[in-house]
Amino acid sequence: MDGYRVGVIGATGAVGKVFLSLLEERRFPVRSLRLFASPRSAGQRIRVLGQEYLVEEVTPEALEGLDILFISASGEVSRLWAPIAARAGVLVIDDSSAFRMDPTVPLVVPEVNGEDLASHRGIIAIPNCSTTALVMAVYPLHRVNPVRRIIVDTYQSVSGTGRAAMEELREQSRALLDGRPYAPKVYPHPIAFNLFPHIDAFLDNGYTREEWKMVEETRKILHAPDLPVSATCVRVPVFICHSEAVHLELTHPMSPEEAREVLAAFPGVEVLDEPRAGRYPMPLWGEGKDAVYVGRIRRDASHPRGLAMWVVSDNLRKGAALNAIQIAEMALQRNLFPTAGRR
Amino acid sequence: MDGYRVGVIGATGAVGKVFLSLLEERRFPVRSLRLFASPRSAGQRIRVLGQEYLVEEVTPEALEGLDILFISASGEVSRLWAPIAARAGVLVIDDSSAFRMDPTVPLVVPEVNGEDLASHRGIIAIPNCSTTALVMAVYPLHRVNPVRRIIVDTYQSVSGTGRAAMEELREQSRALLDGRPYAPKVYPHPIAFNLFPHIDAFLDNGYTREEWKMVEETRKILHAPDLPVSATCVRVPVFICHSEAVHLELTHPMSPEEAREVLAAFPGVEVLDEPRAGRYPMPLWGEGKDAVYVGRIRRDASHPRGLAMWVVSDNLRKGAALNAIQIAEMALQRNLFPTAGRR
Repeated sequence: MDGYRVGVIGATGAVGKVFLSLLEERRFPVRSLRLFASPRSAGQRIRVLGQEYLVEEVTPEALEGLDILFISASGEVSRLWAPIAARAGVLVIDDSSAFRMDPTVPLVVPEVNGEDLASHRGIIAIPNCSTTALVMAVYPLHRVNPVRRIIVDTYQSVSGTGRAAMEELREQSRALLDGRPYAPKVYPHPIAFNLFPHIDAFLDNGYTREEWKMVEETRKILHAPDLPVSATCVRVPVFICHSEAVHLELTHPMSPEEAREVLAAFPGVEVLDEPRAGRYPMPLWGEGKDAVYVGRIRRDASHPRGLAMWVVSDNLRKGAALNAIQIAEMALQRNLFPTAGRR
Repeated sequence: MDGYRVGVIGATGAVGKVFLSLLEERRFPVRSLRLFASPRSAGQRIRVLGQEYLVEEVTPEALEGLDILFISASGEVSRLWAPIAARAGVLVIDDSSAFRMDPTVPLVVPEVNGEDLASHRGIIAIPNCSTTALVMAVYPLHRVNPVRRIIVDTYQSVSGTGRAAMEELREQSRALLDGRPYAPKVYPHPIAFNLFPHIDAFLDNGYTREEWKMVEETRKILHAPDLPVSATCVRVPVFICHSEAVHLELTHPMSPEEAREVLAAFPGVEVLDEPRAGRYPMPLWGEGKDAVYVGRIRRDASHPRGLAMWVVSDNLRKGAALNAIQIAEMALQRNLFPTAGRR
């Protein structure tokens, strides 16, 4: 029988739902599908691929019969289930930060470092959503003109936190407009008509984990362990899409024209850079789209080899579910499934 | 009779209203007050300083009897009326970009370059709101450890555009939440739950005017004509307060502890930097406050002499009306009024 036995942990979450719709949209060869979620969400029914599926709680037995497992839940969930599945011969594609910096786990954006997939030992990590957008925009330039320093400040949507945060932005905005109180539940502060430079926990060096993920994951994906990177990660009252103001120092000066050409030729990147016509990337535009959009490309006035640009990407798609399914497709194409021999 | 004859052009605007409340709050010595606005708003009545004032259209005659005139309208309005008032011996404090880069016009943030006031010839410009916050946070450090490069990415509230933009954010957010259409009127794109890197017009170098203002005005205020500065200015769905992610290169390395100390000792700056306790600057916190708030102070991981920080300031207060009234107070204190001799 054709196709793969696919499992999804976190099937009812913001990323999980996009993953399921991408399975359909991209006609991923699914032989069977099992959907998993927390005890709270188990028992729900989800319609996908023309069938209704029951959302189950995860068990080791349920994982054993799979070829491929996508996990998008918490780091804890991944730490628990990914090794169990991998030991059972399942190819695990993990959306958490649990394994990203593990030297034995490839951290992959297929267009950028797809060749790293080959070294997997059962678990493949996908980068944090803000990192993926950054490396998609930086790598094409880096390939022709090595990047020597990256400064990036982000504008990250609440869907990065999950469905409850989207609900919080919606209900809190409504309450605020109506003059009603609404105590924050998901975030430490109100997010409606507000923003804050606080995503994930604070480290001793003053950065947040989210910022440090951008530093370390970018280095790992670009195979540039010493690349100087700095980030400020900010949560903004937007539902979907992360935006990033990027300032690069390159090895040689680069004209915006050349940068546009190089970026436009790269798969998965779209240049949207006619600012005088009001055409530049923005969340409203990027939502639901697969590409990483780059615009506002200009010489960075503060450095002779500088280039500044503006990047927007759907954090649920290329930032998470799409990147994961692209990895699955590439693994399939290159015969990298642990179960390949068994089938 | 004690006090000054004060005029306000743009009295019904977002900044004008804050200016009027600051006249009261700071007990500015007002002998008489005249309020001006566009023909559209003239005829309104505004209660201030315990009295009701009629909003008038501007005429040359009306300006002649003033000691001091605050203008917060458009660049065109300033270009028309500021020279007429200045020729009549009125001290003009102008909130537009019309005269900021004029070498004969001081561009002043009193705490930073108050000494520049003395050279005025009747017109004093106040910086763009995003510049003021930046130089307030950078100058204290620059004084003890000269800044060699600034990269700043902004998160600017809609009140920077004016009252109509605040109304647009409010009504558009409501419409979007209710699933009703709402065509943008003030902005080129919807701003509710969206954001865009487009403030003011685009220049040939790929920067916007707003971004270039930050470059040029910062250099002028810091008396550092060659200082490398780069900015990306972004409009976000927030009502009041501009936020800024700032990355500095200093002449010598500086510890976050020292930076905090230097900043905390500077008048007009407040350090809010206990991130693990959820204390960092954000718009919700800064709204209606006079200080420029600085937090997230850390060594910039991408440069050996780097320092990163996060700045929030009420763009209507320190970014505009407060800075203007502080200039008036300083001019008064230092006897810099053109009419000083005549009184």
